[in-house]
Formats: sequence, C-alpha cells, structure tokens
Amino acid sequence: LTVPTRTLADVGEVGFLSALLPGLRTGPGTLVGPGQDCAVIRCGNRRWLFTVDALVAGVHFKPAWMSPRQIGRKSFLVNASDVAAMGGRPRFCVVSLGVPSAYRSRDLFALQDGIVAAARDCGASVVGGNLSRAAELFVSIALLADAPKRIVTRRGARPGDRVYVTGTLGDAAAAVRLLGAGGSERRAVPLIRRFCEPAPRLHAGRILVESGIVSAMIDVSDGLLQDLARVCDESGVGARVHAGQVPLSPAYRRILGGSDALALHGGEDYELLCTVPERNVKRLERTRARLGCPITLVGDITAGRGVRLVGNDGRTLRLHSAGFDHFRSPS
Amino acid sequence: LTVPTRTLADVGEVGFLSALLPGLRTGPGTLVGPGQDCAVIRCGNRRWLFTVDALVAGVHFKPAWMSPRQIGRKSFLVNASDVAAMGGRPRFCVVSLGVPSAYRSRDLFALQDGIVAAARDCGASVVGGNLSRAAELFVSIALLADAPKRIVTRRGARPGDRVYVTGTLGDAAAAVRLLGAGGSERRAVPLIRRFCEPAPRLHAGRILVESGIVSAMIDVSDGLLQDLARVCDESGVGARVHAGQVPLSPAYRRILGGSDALALHGGEDYELLCTVPERNVKRLERTRARLGCPITLVGDITAGRGVRLVGNDGRTLRLHSAGFDHFRSPS
Repeated sequence: LTVPTRTLADVGEVGFLSALLPGLRTGPGTLVGPGQDCAVIRCGNRRWLFTVDALVAGVHFKPAWMSPRQIGRKSFLVNASDVAAMGGRPRFCVVSLGVPSAYRSRDLFALQDGIVAAARDCGASVVGGNLSRAAELFVSIALLADAPKRIVTRRGARPGDRVYVTGTLGDAAAAVRLLGAGGSERRAVPLIRRFCEPAPRLHAGRILVESGIVSAMIDVSDGLLQDLARVCDESGVGARVHAGQVPLSPAYRRILGGSDALALHGGEDYELLCTVPERNVKRLERTRARLGCPITLVGDITAGRGVRLVGNDGRTLRLHSAGFDHFRSPS
Repeated sequence: LTVPTRTLADVGEVGFLSALLPGLRTGPGTLVGPGQDCAVIRCGNRRWLFTVDALVAGVHFKPAWMSPRQIGRKSFLVNASDVAAMGGRPRFCVVSLGVPSAYRSRDLFALQDGIVAAARDCGASVVGGNLSRAAELFVSIALLADAPKRIVTRRGARPGDRVYVTGTLGDAAAAVRLLGAGGSERRAVPLIRRFCEPAPRLHAGRILVESGIVSAMIDVSDGLLQDLARVCDESGVGARVHAGQVPLSPAYRRILGGSDALALHGGEDYELLCTVPERNVKRLERTRARLGCPITLVGDITAGRGVRLVGNDGRTLRLHSAGFDHFRSPS
C-alpha cells in the first residue's frame, strides 16, 4: 500500500482492510472495535453488539439467481450470522437500500417483506431505513444485538485448542458454481437453498459463548481456511486442518464427489468456526445435543503461524487458492 | 401502487416510502419506529437514536465535484443531521462501503479519513464496517446517538405554532446548479463548500429539544417545502410559508439575486426546520444567542392540510415544483 496509485483490484479486500483498520481509533464506550464480527459497545450498564453487512447485485449474486424476497432475507441473515459468531440476540436494524430506477415496486415490496420476515424470525425488528437510487441494487443492513455476558472474539485461540465447525461446508460455493454454469438440476436444490437462504447459527452461537466452552469464534463467510486464518492472525497462533474431517452435506457429496476444495475455500456457508480448549471438550460433548446442529472437529490450534492442511496420512497438502476476495476473485 | 409492474421511476421515492412504511411492524423496545429522522430504541433504562443514510456516486454527487475526503465527511454528516433533528449526541457508527475495483486505494484511505474525522468532530467513533465491490461508489453509514430526555419527532406541530429554520437555505442546491453547469467562479466557493461539507446543527438541535421549546423538528434535506410538508402530514396540520422571509446567504443573493426557488425547493441544506408553540416564542428569543446559528421565522402552522406559499402581499403563490425525489428528479 505504499504505491498510492494502486487500485483496490491490486491491493485486494484483505490487504486493504488490514491497512485500514489501524487508522480507526475508537472512543469511550467501545469495548471491542473494528475487525471482529461485531463491535461491542456499552450502553449504560448493558453491552450491545453492532455490525453491518451488505449484498450487492452483480457481486454477491446475479439477480436471476434469487427472488427479491430471498435477497431481502439473505441481507438480514448475513448480519445475523455475525451476531451468532459472538453469541448475541438480534434486536434492531436499519436498512439502506440502493435501487435502480427501473426496479419494479412489486419487487421492492417483496424485498422489504423478506428483510422484515427474516428479522422477525431472528427476534429483531426493522426500525428505520433509507432509500436511494443506485446503478445496481444494494442492500446494506446495520444490526444491533444484545451482547452475551461473556465476550468471545477472534482473538482467544491458544495452541492446543481444538477447531470445530457447525453444520456442513461448501454447499453455498457449490451452488454458486452450479448457478454460474446455468445448471438447475433437481439434486442441486438443497445447495441452492443454502446459498439463497442461509441459516445463521444464532442458537448454537449463544450456547457456545454463554457456556464458556469456546475460546474464539467466527462465522464462515469467506471460506473455512480464510476465516480460520483470521482467527489465527488475531490470536497469534497457527492451525492444522484435517482435510478428511471437513463435514460435507449429502447433496454436496452427490454432486462433487470427494472433492473438498469448495468446502475448504468456498464462502457464504454462514456456519460457525470455533476453538475449544482441551479442558472444555468434555463439556462440549455434553452440550452437543442442545446446539440444534452438528458440530465437527476439523483440526487444532498450533504454535507458530499460518494454517496447514493435512491429509489422512498426516502429510501437509498444498493449498489451491485463497478464499473469496471481493476485489481479486474473478466474478 | 396497485399496478404491480410499475417501477420506482413511476412511483417515486415519496410514493414508495409512504406505501412501504405501514408494512414495518416494530417490536418491543422500539419507542419511535420508521418514518422519522431517527428511530428511538430502549437500551435498559436509556434511550438511543438509530439512523442510516447513504451517499451514492452519480446520484448524490458526481465524483469530480468532491474529493474522497469530502465524500467521507459528508457521508457521516448527513447522518449527524438526522440526529441533530432529534436533539441527540452521536456516539457510534458502522460504515458500509461499496467500491469499484478501479478505485484507488489512496482515495479510499482519504475517504475513510473523512468519515473518521467527521465522526470525531461530532463526538462519535467508527466501530465497524464492511467493504464490498460495487459498480458505483456508495457509502452507507448507520449511526447510534444518545437520545435526549425529551423525544421530538415530526408529529408534534399544532395550528398556531410558528415555523422557524436555522441558518440559510438554498446554498447547496445553488452549488449543484453551478457545479452541473461546470461553473467554478470564485464567488461560488461558499456555496460549493456548503454542498460538499454540510454542518449539521447538533448544538442548536440539542438546545431546541432539551429546552422544550419546539413541538416538531426535521432536518431540511429534501427542500424546505417538501420537508415542511412531511411535518404537516405527520402532524395532521397545514402550514403557510412567507416566501419573503426565507433566509438567504449573501453568496446566494449575489449569484441568484432575488430568486428564492432553490431556497424553497432545493435539498441538502441540512438546516433544522422546527415548529414553536406561541407560548414558547419568548423563550426561543431568550435562547437564540445560545444556538450558535441564526434562526428565522418563515411561517406558521394552520388547520387543514398542505403547505401554502404566500407573498409579501399575503396572496398565495403557485409552487413551481416538488423537492428532490431520487426516482423522479432528472439527474
């Protein structure tokens, strides 16, 4: 970032964000500042989570892939997933819409219905908004949530901790590949549903945080390996992932066979990735049935830096690619 | 809005918003919901204001008109103006950026600096954000503010109340006209500065609310007559504006002479428009010196509906046009 004429395409989202974050100084009342899934702010004797996320047409989806209602739903749910990663309860959101002039008002009502319904499903309400004209549709939602008593960020992982993920990985990335190829085979339906209507792990996230079981947590929005690398960078540790242990859905297996590349690198699964100190593993086992979703051991935290992928024989595998980067990935 | 294939260009922003708002049901803890300058939410025994606003390149400005730093500053300040209209103190914001791949990283740093500096100037901090690729630059900011003890919305105007505005009107609209014509005459500089760097009336807004002087308030973002019409619609009253009393800046008078069309209809002044019951007028006069800006009587609230513009002779003048509508105004 020393050459001032470099563009975002040169620098990439990750490079830019890491250079940008130190420039943000936060004031009184900020308990956790930028760079986590949510900020934590103090309000009197309470603490709130505060986060923002956007969906942009042509970047996060092609309009033909999703109904307006699904676009609305997903715009809320990706925020709820950030709240899930810190164990919070969504409460209030404001919506910023950018809409092309030729957009049909019927579609905009459906989009709003999707936002409102998803918010309600998660216990939140839409308290305000803004509507602007824009060349391409965008939906940006800022969400406030009740914070849990215990704050878990990406920073608490320690060598020896186990790495777990909820649910299954790779379905959303597989759906994007199928949708991009114009495919709409029947067996792809469960994958496409996962891309279009993510299910944030709010309940599991709350239990994992409130029980004190996890040392660090993040939601898997940019791919398992990339999001785990974020946890490692923030915590000053490394990690080892066992490729053969990454949980795959039946639909993913049927369509992609044994290839785990999308499960390792693909974004938008909105599962939770957490680290669990060894002393808490038994408690995790006792809690497992209450989570409402599977949780799978995929690796462990190591000393040093970087994420290593190992095969069933314990040998290090080469990583094919990085996760999703807005400004560098082909679209 | 009964014909489902109508587009936003047909329906207009105002028409759409008025049809959309009833679809929003808010939950517990929402003291004031959508449709005001800010929502008011409860947090324990405290109350917060919550608002969102966006600037979109090609809609709110042409990139050549403003430096990246100014774009960042203004993105924050338009939100602060919504907080000013309800007498709050800005505290925490999250930023959602949509940025073209070819945008220079140097410019994005400057844009961020502008946001952070404007937030700091207003007593707030940037606690989180999101960066996405987008076809056109957009900056959407959601802002939380401490609410004052007394809640003032657009709903409290009563017949007989006086209508006041802070500062002067029309400068920003005059700047847009000059910038659009490619003009950069020296005498236009104060006008262009007002467009590029609005000065939200936070201090005046707090005093007007906390003193209990005003019955309703709104910030003038879409033009005096349009924003006054919003107050009237929400309050179920009408209003009369004396065209000759609308405050104009020296720069506006020099360039536009006596024409008050831009002062009446032009948006983006970010002044405060408030209504003051007659019994409070003397207190307003005593408070005037503390506001930090001029405040001018421009009309009064009447029974009935609609906003009437009257000339010096008391006769009703014809209104030339509506205020700014994203989906209907030529751009």
